[in-house]
Amino acid sequence: MIKVGIVGGTGYTGVELLRLLVNHPGAEVSVITSRAEAGVPVATLYPSLRGHLDLAFTAPDEKVLSRCDLVFFATPHGVAQAMMPGLVKEGVRIVDLSADFRIRDAALWSRWYKQEHACPELIDMAVYGLPERNREAIRGAQLIACPGCYPTATQLGLIPLLENSLVEPSSLIANAASGASGAGRQANVDNLLSEISDSFKAYGSGGHRHLPEIEQALRDAQPAGDVSVGLTFVPHLLPMIRGIHVTAYATLNEASRGLSDQALQDLYESRYAQEPFVDVMPSGSHPATRSVKGSNVCRLSVCRPQGRDTIVVMSVIDNLTKGASGQAIQNMNIMFGLDERAGLEQVALMP
Amino acid sequence: MIKVGIVGGTGYTGVELLRLLVNHPGAEVSVITSRAEAGVPVATLYPSLRGHLDLAFTAPDEKVLSRCDLVFFATPHGVAQAMMPGLVKEGVRIVDLSADFRIRDAALWSRWYKQEHACPELIDMAVYGLPERNREAIRGAQLIACPGCYPTATQLGLIPLLENSLVEPSSLIANAASGASGAGRQANVDNLLSEISDSFKAYGSGGHRHLPEIEQALRDAQPAGDVSVGLTFVPHLLPMIRGIHVTAYATLNEASRGLSDQALQDLYESRYAQEPFVDVMPSGSHPATRSVKGSNVCRLSVCRPQGRDTIVVMSVIDNLTKGASGQAIQNMNIMFGLDERAGLEQVALMP
Amino acid sequence: MIKVGIVGGTGYTGVELLRLLVNHPGAEVSVITSRAEAGVPVATLYPSLRGHLDLAFTAPDEKVLSRCDLVFFATPHGVAQAMMPGLVKEGVRIVDLSADFRIRDAALWSRWYKQEHACPELIDMAVYGLPERNREAIRGAQLIACPGCYPTATQLGLIPLLENSLVEPSSLIANAASGASGAGRQANVDNLLSEISDSFKAYGSGGHRHLPEIEQALRDAQPAGDVSVGLTFVPHLLPMIRGIHVTAYATLNEASRGLSDQALQDLYESRYAQEPFVDVMPSGSHPATRSVKGSNVCRLSVCRPQGRDTIVVMSVIDNLTKGASGQAIQNMNIMFGLDERAGLEQVALMP
Amino acid sequence: MIKVGIVGGTGYTGVELLRLLVNHPGAEVSVITSRAEAGVPVATLYPSLRGHLDLAFTAPDEKVLSRCDLVFFATPHGVAQAMMPGLVKEGVRIVDLSADFRIRDAALWSRWYKQEHACPELIDMAVYGLPERNREAIRGAQLIACPGCYPTATQLGLIPLLENSLVEPSSLIANAASGASGAGRQANVDNLLSEISDSFKAYGSGGHRHLPEIEQALRDAQPAGDVSVGLTFVPHLLPMIRGIHVTAYATLNEASRGLSDQALQDLYESRYAQEPFVDVMPSGSHPATRSVKGSNVCRLSVCRPQGRDTIVVMSVIDNLTKGASGQAIQNMNIMFGLDERAGLEQVALMP
Repeated sequence: MIKVGIVGGTGYTGVELLRLLVNHPGAEVSVITSRAEAGVPVATLYPSLRGHLDLAFTAPDEKVLSRCDLVFFATPHGVAQAMMPGLVKEGVRIVDLSADFRIRDAALWSRWYKQEHACPELIDMAVYGLPERNREAIRGAQLIACPGCYPTATQLGLIPLLENSLVEPSSLIANAASGASGAGRQANVDNLLSEISDSFKAYGSGGHRHLPEIEQALRDAQPAGDVSVGLTFVPHLLPMIRGIHVTAYATLNEASRGLSDQALQDLYESRYAQEPFVDVMPSGSHPATRSVKGSNVCRLSVCRPQGRDTIVVMSVIDNLTKGASGQAIQNMNIMFGLDERAGLEQVALMP
Repeated sequence: MIKVGIVGGTGYTGVELLRLLVNHPGAEVSVITSRAEAGVPVATLYPSLRGHLDLAFTAPDEKVLSRCDLVFFATPHGVAQAMMPGLVKEGVRIVDLSADFRIRDAALWSRWYKQEHACPELIDMAVYGLPERNREAIRGAQLIACPGCYPTATQLGLIPLLENSLVEPSSLIANAASGASGAGRQANVDNLLSEISDSFKAYGSGGHRHLPEIEQALRDAQPAGDVSVGLTFVPHLLPMIRGIHVTAYATLNEASRGLSDQALQDLYESRYAQEPFVDVMPSGSHPATRSVKGSNVCRLSVCRPQGRDTIVVMSVIDNLTKGASGQAIQNMNIMFGLDERAGLEQVALMP
Repeated sequence: MIKVGIVGGTGYTGVELLRLLVNHPGAEVSVITSRAEAGVPVATLYPSLRGHLDLAFTAPDEKVLSRCDLVFFATPHGVAQAMMPGLVKEGVRIVDLSADFRIRDAALWSRWYKQEHACPELIDMAVYGLPERNREAIRGAQLIACPGCYPTATQLGLIPLLENSLVEPSSLIANAASGASGAGRQANVDNLLSEISDSFKAYGSGGHRHLPEIEQALRDAQPAGDVSVGLTFVPHLLPMIRGIHVTAYATLNEASRGLSDQALQDLYESRYAQEPFVDVMPSGSHPATRSVKGSNVCRLSVCRPQGRDTIVVMSVIDNLTKGASGQAIQNMNIMFGLDERAGLEQVALMP
Repeated sequence: MIKVGIVGGTGYTGVELLRLLVNHPGAEVSVITSRAEAGVPVATLYPSLRGHLDLAFTAPDEKVLSRCDLVFFATPHGVAQAMMPGLVKEGVRIVDLSADFRIRDAALWSRWYKQEHACPELIDMAVYGLPERNREAIRGAQLIACPGCYPTATQLGLIPLLENSLVEPSSLIANAASGASGAGRQANVDNLLSEISDSFKAYGSGGHRHLPEIEQALRDAQPAGDVSVGLTFVPHLLPMIRGIHVTAYATLNEASRGLSDQALQDLYESRYAQEPFVDVMPSGSHPATRSVKGSNVCRLSVCRPQGRDTIVVMSVIDNLTKGASGQAIQNMNIMFGLDERAGLEQVALMP
């Protein structure tokens, strides 16, 4: 059994890790930290775990954590950087669900996150944990930067087009929408039910922190030497808890205008044929976020409306599962040589 | 492996059975029927099952079903009675999720369901499938009448009081509220999102079909010879999909007015101490339906406000799981000598 | 035009006052205070008011407020007591939407609100602003204690029974459910969409602050000399924004068991025949909260299930309108001799 | 008083017309038709109207309708065409909320609506009722084709760019999302709360019936002689009742790349400065659908993320108000020389 620690267990990605790990056949949570809730049984905060987990929150302690085989950081960005170098030195393997190691350019990171990076020397060793792109590197990694929720849904939607140089990389659009759990469990007027239920709006259209992460990843997806990527990324807030839906738009480049609908569909199906957690729907389908609620699946469909030059890709994930904690466990499974599906076989809750 | 058939698989209890059975360690779905959708792959109707189930709906065929070890009837009341006698004769074991065999008095059943009962001769052999009351009888039963959703939540809330003759049985109140999935997957203006979202109302206050079932069960729960039960049952419709919340009110009888709060709490805790799917929360708690969403748990709390004579019990279940399909599988597990928890360990989806 | 001031205008009852007052034919908002948002245009905080109101929040200033004909206090309890005596001395008329003057017994108030009352000498002059009970007293009042949301819905549901001594006053039950806006616009994890959407639970079953207010009012509703009232009041939290639904249960006393269904219905209809904002639905109906969303109406229905001794009353209001700001304006209309309906004719938003 | 008739009054645009008209200072509903509900009081179907409207549905009767000054058709497309010529001959003025007269090319209409047009001879006389484009023509029109909900939000968002030839007309994108009331009050499994609540998905990406209407209107918005328009239009379904949000993307043409952010903002503000129902928010804002819930306002904002060549416009309306019934009344006000705002001053319900 993999001995697992969780740093920052009171947030939504923390409780989602627990939901998945308590039934995981090859891992066991041995410590879960929270400064604010130290001493409180986890099941007191989250009654859904009553009968499943007999553990209390403890204050974070590097010595205790260093006895784990793997530590998940489920903290906001910037919070856990201080503890990272010590654990790395002890040889503990780490999956960081925060944004701290996702961007390779420390200066760019600082600009978007408005703080200095506390351990830039670790950035190079971090592997970007999108299995569908980096499975081999993940296997041997000590430190995984687990992708953001919007970036996961957007990349899985667009990389088949970019890997094959079919579209203009400079004018990509990702119109994204997320459930409110993406904003975390913060006492904040903006996320009250009375403020965001029964309504819909965009936010961060001027520049969302996930933009540089997505652009970096999309650039990487292109065959070597390709030009940089220009993405217009507009996130929206959905009046519901879980789920991300990305509607991506890309313009076929001149060389690709002859692409048939069937060839487009085949491209997506073959790209993901071996992927346990990416499901390409039949042509003409529209993936609904509920079809992945609580599951680790990314469900996709692609079309070319009116036969014009704009390709539309629809991509859904559960932001807390494939967009965070499920993907983190998928990384763990790969790192420790387990079946990649272990602990992640849940069927989405329907209806 | 238990070979399982499902009759009437297109409704919400059908897809919930599938969600739970595709990961069940000891059972396998071999046939699932639907007259209307015969030939359609199940995963086409329910994309959440893509990759989990490679089966198509077929028209119901008694011969095919009789090769199953167990058949679940997930049909509306009255629909499946015609097929029942044949399967019973073949020795197939049956868990009927409909209301057809829940009420022992066929005339009473006819009055509430406004039709003749098609096989009253089978009523006697049916065991009422509430494991917390009838576990032994379930073990050997061939035909299980799986309890209704409101009746499950109400009974589990009230039986500790009735089994111990602590309250007036003639003036019980169950103020219940259910998510919209309780009304099933019927094309009906009344259940449109635009009609029932963002609103709350009672319905059926003049008499809901679950009333005679609950009264029968509450009467049974009293020590032999006790008087009949009078329940005021008012169901309400919640603007959400899953979950039942029952707030039950009972008046302490004269002999019991000295009952201390601690004794009341102890009574509930000890009654359910060995039950894998009933969880009594600490005194002062309020169970939320989300704490059982997608799980087979009934979560309870009990209190006596202002020290007066009215006991308040709060009881939550997921109407599709412990209120229907999960409980059906719990019955199956008992009938076939499996671990009662098999396939039912899911943690509620939180948040 | 009545010159109106609003103290504490940033909360939900504040913005609801504004929604109703900007189209009121006989009143005009001249000042609206908020310490935290002083200087900010109201329409910046509430874009729904863009184009309707050209006013900025100002810090509360007794001198400025004393120039108003009427001041609404839309502050949490306890906050505004300090400013009250000065304004009263200046002769300003006041409608207080908080709980400060609703309970006549200052000691009882202190016990439930866990603080000393800062101006107990004003309690006697306060008139409890339920027009359906106190219209004449409201007309001449200087200080109105505007009823709470749960108390309004519960009283209007039960007073026809109590005024006529038809039921046992000692064992009343009010099973109530409220939308999340009842908790106000506070930064609080408990009211996040991710915490309370898609779920339902009771709260405060051990004792909610509205209990003493309701009990006092129900006691008052009985013919002089009657016994005190015992109410079991269990509030619940609905996964939606606006609306209160009270399902009240009362036991017919011995003298009244012969009451026919028709007599019961007639009792309610005649009691409210002249009331502009109470609507008794036909027998067999169930009022839905959406039927009063955004309107000042209380909609009721009453029944006697199975002809037993328990009367069930269902009562719905919009907690922010008839349960707070609409009722406050109704009081203002009465105090200033306007048509009681002025500014309150909005039809509920449907669907 | 304008004597108003409504054909097809049981749907959501019908009840929205009633909500607005019962308080309209210059109009009075004298007849409302429904074949299915003939004889039923309107307030029985819609309890929100109890006390506001004392009228019953009647079977449609051309003679009765011809006595009206104005008839609103709130029927599905195709249904009312048969009755139209007779009423037109009688000189009745008509505002048709259906799609029947929105598209000038009858063959194109037939292709998208999959039926022959029953009175193509009337198409030429129909005026497209978007006041912000056609106010003068509306004034004198006898027959108004009231714009669709998506088309209204999309046009108001994009016409400032197209009227000034700032963007490439061939590669416009409208990523739109609508509340469920847009699908009407039809008994349809797809619109059950249990199917679409708590979920989000696209639909009709291959081609939605509003596409040709929007393309025609956007083409018209360009200075004479301009090229045709290519719009990629992807509608999505929101888990809520009311509201449309369009996020439109347009590429600046070469001549316009120097446009400053301030100039862009000024362009929108000046275009709509005189419009009573279009509100351009300050730069950096994001309009929320709740800010227009129940009101006739279209609220807009515009930005140019990262200074790149893609302009993003966000546009919200209430699909039943400015997207249907409110706009229909706005047209009526213009046709009859009333204040354009008459009966349409409601402030959005907030929260």
